[in-house]
Amino acid sequence: MTATPTIPILAGSRLHHIGVVVADLERAVQSYTALGFGTPELLTIPEQGIIAAFYTLAQGSVELLQPTDPDGAIGRFLAKRGEGFHHAAYQVDDLAATLDTLAAAEVELIDRTPRIGAHNLRIAFVHPRAANGILTELVQEP
Amino acid sequence: MTATPTIPILAGSRLHHIGVVVADLERAVQSYTALGFGTPELLTIPEQGIIAAFYTLAQGSVELLQPTDPDGAIGRFLAKRGEGFHHAAYQVDDLAATLDTLAAAEVELIDRTPRIGAHNLRIAFVHPRAANGILTELVQEP
Repeated sequence: MTATPTIPILAGSRLHHIGVVVADLERAVQSYTALGFGTPELLTIPEQGIIAAFYTLAQGSVELLQPTDPDGAIGRFLAKRGEGFHHAAYQVDDLAATLDTLAAAEVELIDRTPRIGAHNLRIAFVHPRAANGILTELVQEP
Repeated sequence: MTATPTIPILAGSRLHHIGVVVADLERAVQSYTALGFGTPELLTIPEQGIIAAFYTLAQGSVELLQPTDPDGAIGRFLAKRGEGFHHAAYQVDDLAATLDTLAAAEVELIDRTPRIGAHNLRIAFVHPRAANGILTELVQEP
C-alpha cells in the first residue's frame, strides 16, 4: 500500500462534505428538510449526469445526488448499491501538492491531477481501496 | 415522514465526524496514516464491542471502528456489509432540544433522549430511513 512514511498532510484538512446518492431528489430534500438541514441549493450538473442539492452547515455541508443518466457513475452506483453514502470530502489548501505527496507514497488515486467539480472547485478522488471502502474526495476552495 | 414544517435546526450544525467500520484496525490505521491523516487516538470501548481510532482534523474528524464482539452492532454490520461507511455525525448545541424538535416533526429516531458515547459526548442517532440510508448521529460537546 505505502512505500514510505508520509507526512500528515490531511491532518490539517477540514471535513468538507459528505455525498449521499438518492433515488428521488425531491423526496430526499423533503427528508433532509424535515431533519432540519435548512434550504438547499439546487444544481444541475449534466456532465456528471446528476442533479444535486447542497445543504451548507455552520461547518461542512451535505450533498444529495440523484442520477439523471442511468449509465453515468452515480446512476450505476444507485442501481448496484441503492441509496446511501457515496463519498467523504476533505478540504486541503494545495490540492496539486497533496496529490503529489500521496502519489509519492503510492496511495491509489483515481485522479492524479485536480479537475473541476461542482461549484467550480478543484477536486480529486482517492480510490476507496486506499481508505477502507470510503470514496475519498479532496477539495481545494478557490 | 413529517407532519409539520420544521425549523432548520441542523443548518446551524457542524459536520463533526464520519465513522468507518474496518475489519483490522491496525491495517486500517496504516492506510489512513498513508493518506496523511496523522496520528490517531486509540480507544477501547468495551460497552460498544469495538476498538476505535480517532483522527482529529483541522475541522471534524474520522473514526475507524473495528468490532471486538461479533454479536455487537458493529460486528453484525461488518459481517453483513463489509468495510466502509457507518455513520455521519453532526454537532449541535443543545441535543435534547434538537431531539424534541425532530420528534415533534415525526422524524424516526433511534434515541429519543441523549446517551453517552465515546469521549463522554452526549450523542443520539437518527434512523437511516429518515436520512436516505445515512445513519445520522447527533453530538453535543461538553
